[in-house]
Amino acid sequence: MNRLTTRALVLASTLAITGAVPAQVFGPRELGEQSKACIACHREHSPALYQQWGDSKHYRANVGCFECHSANEGEPDAYMHHNQLIAVLVTPKDCSRCHSKQVEEFSKSHHSKGARILGSLDNVLAEVVEGNRGFRTEGLPEGVSAAAVNGCWQCHGTEVKVLAEGKLDPATWPNSGIGRINPDGSEGACNACHTRHSFSAAQARHPSTCGKCHMGPDHPQKEIYEESKHGINFFANLNKMNMESPKWVVGEDYWAAPTCATCHMSATKKQAVTHDVGLRISWNNRPEVSIRPEVADAKMNLPGAGITWETRRANMVDVCINCHDTQWVTNFYAQYDSLVDLYNTKFGVPGKELYQLAKPLLAGAQFANELDWTWYELWHHEGRRARHGASMMGPDYTHWHGTYEVAKRFYSEYVPQLTELAERHLADADAGKAAAAAALRARLGEVLNSEDHKWYIGKMSPEEAARRQRAAEEFRSRYESK
Amino acid sequence: MNRLTTRALVLASTLAITGAVPAQVFGPRELGEQSKACIACHREHSPALYQQWGDSKHYRANVGCFECHSANEGEPDAYMHHNQLIAVLVTPKDCSRCHSKQVEEFSKSHHSKGARILGSLDNVLAEVVEGNRGFRTEGLPEGVSAAAVNGCWQCHGTEVKVLAEGKLDPATWPNSGIGRINPDGSEGACNACHTRHSFSAAQARHPSTCGKCHMGPDHPQKEIYEESKHGINFFANLNKMNMESPKWVVGEDYWAAPTCATCHMSATKKQAVTHDVGLRISWNNRPEVSIRPEVADAKMNLPGAGITWETRRANMVDVCINCHDTQWVTNFYAQYDSLVDLYNTKFGVPGKELYQLAKPLLAGAQFANELDWTWYELWHHEGRRARHGASMMGPDYTHWHGTYEVAKRFYSEYVPQLTELAERHLADADAGKAAAAAALRARLGEVLNSEDHKWYIGKMSPEEAARRQRAAEEFRSRYESK
Amino acid sequence: MNRLTTRALVLASTLAITGAVPAQVFGPRELGEQSKACIACHREHSPALYQQWGDSKHYRANVGCFECHSANEGEPDAYMHHNQLIAVLVTPKDCSRCHSKQVEEFSKSHHSKGARILGSLDNVLAEVVEGNRGFRTEGLPEGVSAAAVNGCWQCHGTEVKVLAEGKLDPATWPNSGIGRINPDGSEGACNACHTRHSFSAAQARHPSTCGKCHMGPDHPQKEIYEESKHGINFFANLNKMNMESPKWVVGEDYWAAPTCATCHMSATKKQAVTHDVGLRISWNNRPEVSIRPEVADAKMNLPGAGITWETRRANMVDVCINCHDTQWVTNFYAQYDSLVDLYNTKFGVPGKELYQLAKPLLAGAQFANELDWTWYELWHHEGRRARHGASMMGPDYTHWHGTYEVAKRFYSEYVPQLTELAERHLADADAGKAAAAAALRARLGEVLNSEDHKWYIGKMSPEEAARRQRAAEEFRSRYESK
Repeated sequence: MNRLTTRALVLASTLAITGAVPAQVFGPRELGEQSKACIACHREHSPALYQQWGDSKHYRANVGCFECHSANEGEPDAYMHHNQLIAVLVTPKDCSRCHSKQVEEFSKSHHSKGARILGSLDNVLAEVVEGNRGFRTEGLPEGVSAAAVNGCWQCHGTEVKVLAEGKLDPATWPNSGIGRINPDGSEGACNACHTRHSFSAAQARHPSTCGKCHMGPDHPQKEIYEESKHGINFFANLNKMNMESPKWVVGEDYWAAPTCATCHMSATKKQAVTHDVGLRISWNNRPEVSIRPEVADAKMNLPGAGITWETRRANMVDVCINCHDTQWVTNFYAQYDSLVDLYNTKFGVPGKELYQLAKPLLAGAQFANELDWTWYELWHHEGRRARHGASMMGPDYTHWHGTYEVAKRFYSEYVPQLTELAERHLADADAGKAAAAAALRARLGEVLNSEDHKWYIGKMSPEEAARRQRAAEEFRSRYESK
Repeated sequence: MNRLTTRALVLASTLAITGAVPAQVFGPRELGEQSKACIACHREHSPALYQQWGDSKHYRANVGCFECHSANEGEPDAYMHHNQLIAVLVTPKDCSRCHSKQVEEFSKSHHSKGARILGSLDNVLAEVVEGNRGFRTEGLPEGVSAAAVNGCWQCHGTEVKVLAEGKLDPATWPNSGIGRINPDGSEGACNACHTRHSFSAAQARHPSTCGKCHMGPDHPQKEIYEESKHGINFFANLNKMNMESPKWVVGEDYWAAPTCATCHMSATKKQAVTHDVGLRISWNNRPEVSIRPEVADAKMNLPGAGITWETRRANMVDVCINCHDTQWVTNFYAQYDSLVDLYNTKFGVPGKELYQLAKPLLAGAQFANELDWTWYELWHHEGRRARHGASMMGPDYTHWHGTYEVAKRFYSEYVPQLTELAERHLADADAGKAAAAAALRARLGEVLNSEDHKWYIGKMSPEEAARRQRAAEEFRSRYESK
Repeated sequence: MNRLTTRALVLASTLAITGAVPAQVFGPRELGEQSKACIACHREHSPALYQQWGDSKHYRANVGCFECHSANEGEPDAYMHHNQLIAVLVTPKDCSRCHSKQVEEFSKSHHSKGARILGSLDNVLAEVVEGNRGFRTEGLPEGVSAAAVNGCWQCHGTEVKVLAEGKLDPATWPNSGIGRINPDGSEGACNACHTRHSFSAAQARHPSTCGKCHMGPDHPQKEIYEESKHGINFFANLNKMNMESPKWVVGEDYWAAPTCATCHMSATKKQAVTHDVGLRISWNNRPEVSIRPEVADAKMNLPGAGITWETRRANMVDVCINCHDTQWVTNFYAQYDSLVDLYNTKFGVPGKELYQLAKPLLAGAQFANELDWTWYELWHHEGRRARHGASMMGPDYTHWHGTYEVAKRFYSEYVPQLTELAERHLADADAGKAAAAAALRARLGEVLNSEDHKWYIGKMSPEEAARRQRAAEEFRSRYESK
């Protein structure tokens, strides 16, 4: 699966052909003969593809079709095409021949493990609940869910299956999911962000690129960015962003606004670009209850397990201070942390515990009970939105799409459904279920009687009620007296 | 209603005035006297309108106010305005005097029949359920629903009513709905896309233009485009799009990204521009169960009835191959078709059948039952989103806004509501209803016991469960072993 | 709290230093020594901030760091920073030293009273239902809700608390909410729209800026604008918008499209710019039932109480006619008014009345009942969307996100919940509750039997049903006969 040999030869021969003058130190001196042959046809048959390449940095570097698409004999996806052995798929392993540092960083990131989802909960949803095994292909004769193929896999990636004569299985390609598992064993797809065939850095710096996957009900980072001051400034000052600059150091090359890349990946005066997007993140808000990123990395056997959230936060602060003073940044993090803490303690922890207690009373298959959906959307959709919203200062996502929805779901659906479930089974003939129902009811009672929730059962203390009344009146009087 | 005569005279006289030199072959040699008179006032009173026109192609072509707004004696909406007989409304019939090919193509399209909705289901919603007949006008004295006027009609168009002295009824105009029915009998509004008063092609090529109507919960094409690689590339490369180019052939004049127009309307090296937007579409995903576009065209007596989906798909493929190779395109269509098939077979067909079986048990008026809303949103909102999402490779719309919502609606609402409805009527005094309830329950049982749905009732086969367990574990081990 | 004295001295001394030539009439002749000292460090430590300022109008006007951030002895948030007494917060009072007219106008607007929300219903949601008092700070030792801090307060503003040594309490700052209550008693934050540190008018004219707060489920003005022709034209013609022009008079300096600012704030040939955004609005669609803006102003003791909606509408019409003729504008308002009237009469008024009648039957705490959420979303989310959608001609927001959702909520949730509530209490042991239940049931019956709602109970008159049938058939035949 290693294309290094062939391609090294390709480069070498390109250099050798030039003969007369000393070989260049870096890269080919002119475009190889094989690539010229590719172009002779493709400029006619795929003119826009050809032009995208012509507009790329690869063009001036004499990196043409064959320099990336050539294959070695024996590679599973290699096939003869007009007398040249090529492969359609260009993988991170291929890209690493010229961009080894970037691929190395990327391979340590969560991004590169995106396809891990194929063995997870969300995959049960797409495979069984939403889907069936109706999409049968040569490579997947038992069939696969079209909901997974067209949905999950397009962001997360999948294992690309190779058919006879180097063809790629239609259920597994087209696929530019960021955690794609390639026939050569490498993980990822560089063109997930550096879209074909211009492979531009400017493209990858643009928030739309991240928005291919980081959007929608369960992780609306793109929408939050657009609401935040960061996005507002970006969209109003795009022409000042110097997006095409190779260096692109914040505060040196641009200052009007940050994009997703600025904060999570790009260079500052002190930090180099990184392709491991987790190194500046101090919370992992993906699970039911937020955890620290090093904990998540440890679970996935990633080297980030050794990098504490404090280090990562310091990395991010180094970005922030280009535009904000230290007090601002410190205070921002106090606000963000407070929201994560509110969600975790008021909803995440008790919600998760109650769901565990309810499980013995539920029908066997997950998502066959209304309660499954209720809890899932509470943490996976709404609870994330609140936390992500606060992380990027998008107030409507924090509140209206976030904590408001969390609270509505909790009090108007989750609690009544749990109550009904417990009551229905209190006298269950199955003693185990009756006991489970009693345990659930007891814990639910404790939760509702706790400081955070007792308003719901009319037990807000008179002192607190009076305090709130007073505060509201004082506040209103402020405006009325004017 | 035909303005041809007057306006031909207008053009002729413009030419005649010039006298001394031979008349031009095409178009007026200079701006007509009548338009000059219009401008004398409107440059003061409507300065932005005047400037938009000044920025349009019409300006240099000496096509001014009067060339479009002049009217013939006897036209219903003609009226005297500062001694010139004019009409406010400029219709496709008027535009066809110079743009006959475009109007002809447009008149064969679904777009031109947009107002047909006024006799359909959605109209019942807007007229009765959401609305009333509280908006009473001179032209519609019985009253009309403000929800239809401000909602449906603004995209679909309506029949424009003419009042005394050429005034237009306020319930029916302003209206630039794409299927507007004009006083001269023509259908459509060119300014639905070529917005006044610059009437620009570049404007119509911009995805925002299509997004006026193709957005929102039931047909979020604009949002899907924005999530897709196509939209991502467009928004990051707008300055390379050469949007103002008259020719605008993909692969020749631009290559950075396609817009809606590129794929559905604009020129390729082999295909000319078309104003019939359905000629490259191979599925009609509008109804409960997707159909082929020629079937839809036949229902509407459109000439497209004779154009098979294979031909239309070939038309689209001719666009795709400018940027993608043939294998990519073939495989994409396999993925897209698989999603349409999944939705149709697992949810669309049985869902529709169950709704028919439930009807005898429902209250008379549609939308007076919760079940009506449940089924409607399942196919009309969520089911479309899934299919549209797959058609343009927007993975979150396919999955999170699509199949996820379809499945949630089906299992957590539709099935329980159907079950409850059947059970409530099994012993109905009305023998017909009892029989209907039994039939509904029987069919529901069959559906839930079918391969696609039996997981829900805990009947996933042990083999399948074991297979899934194994696959998930293998997948996880992949990452844990590293 | 008044920084005038110090800063006047700063300016004066800047002028005095120049000595030899006569002092300038306006503004400092060169950048002050103190600001130069600030820059010496901050150009290194906050390079992007420094560059933003360098890109601002302030740069050429010699208004530097110290000119805005200097503080007087005794100001609560003043502190010594490298031997200069400064304050972090720059307030409208500070800005008014150079921009007095703008601050004066702003202080009369609803915008400046944004923090009034802190004593309102939405605040109960964020403080109690969604939140707790878990975010404890030095300035707010009793604790405050992180949902309010990260949500509500970021748009509405909050009271900024000053800690020891001029530090700002982290729960109350960062905060650029438009109604922020500053330590100097002034209200607002100019950088809510004129974002730091370029403070640009062009930025404030861009719809993204308004979209920081005017978006989301309960007031999606940004989304509606994007769907409207106004937004469509803007996004396709951004390069023609002349956004940086100081004068920026519609019809003179630009004509391609209006932004939010164009219609609500910016200059026309006849009107000057205003920073009171309510002066061109003829409906206040915020409450359960729309009211006129002068009524809302009177409730808030704002000077706008004396400015009728007719005057405000005339102000807006003066903007509209730059692009639209008078008949168009008049008819548009007839359409918009009809939608407000439909919502008010069919849903707003009876819905509010029924909720009042239901209250005696509900659990004490608001939002502890499902009905609370149902009614709240009907008017506060969906009912607003319909009205806002019509106000800006966004048909999908008017209909699919608006009246459709209103009707669905009303018929499939609100009416059934009210019915169930009334029936459950008809025989209540508490005679008061039984009487309340009877009253609720009676009024609900009247509402459902009224002309607007009787379709729901199957009582559409045969004449009306026949009329509708006929109309639909005629409409369909139109297309079938072709």
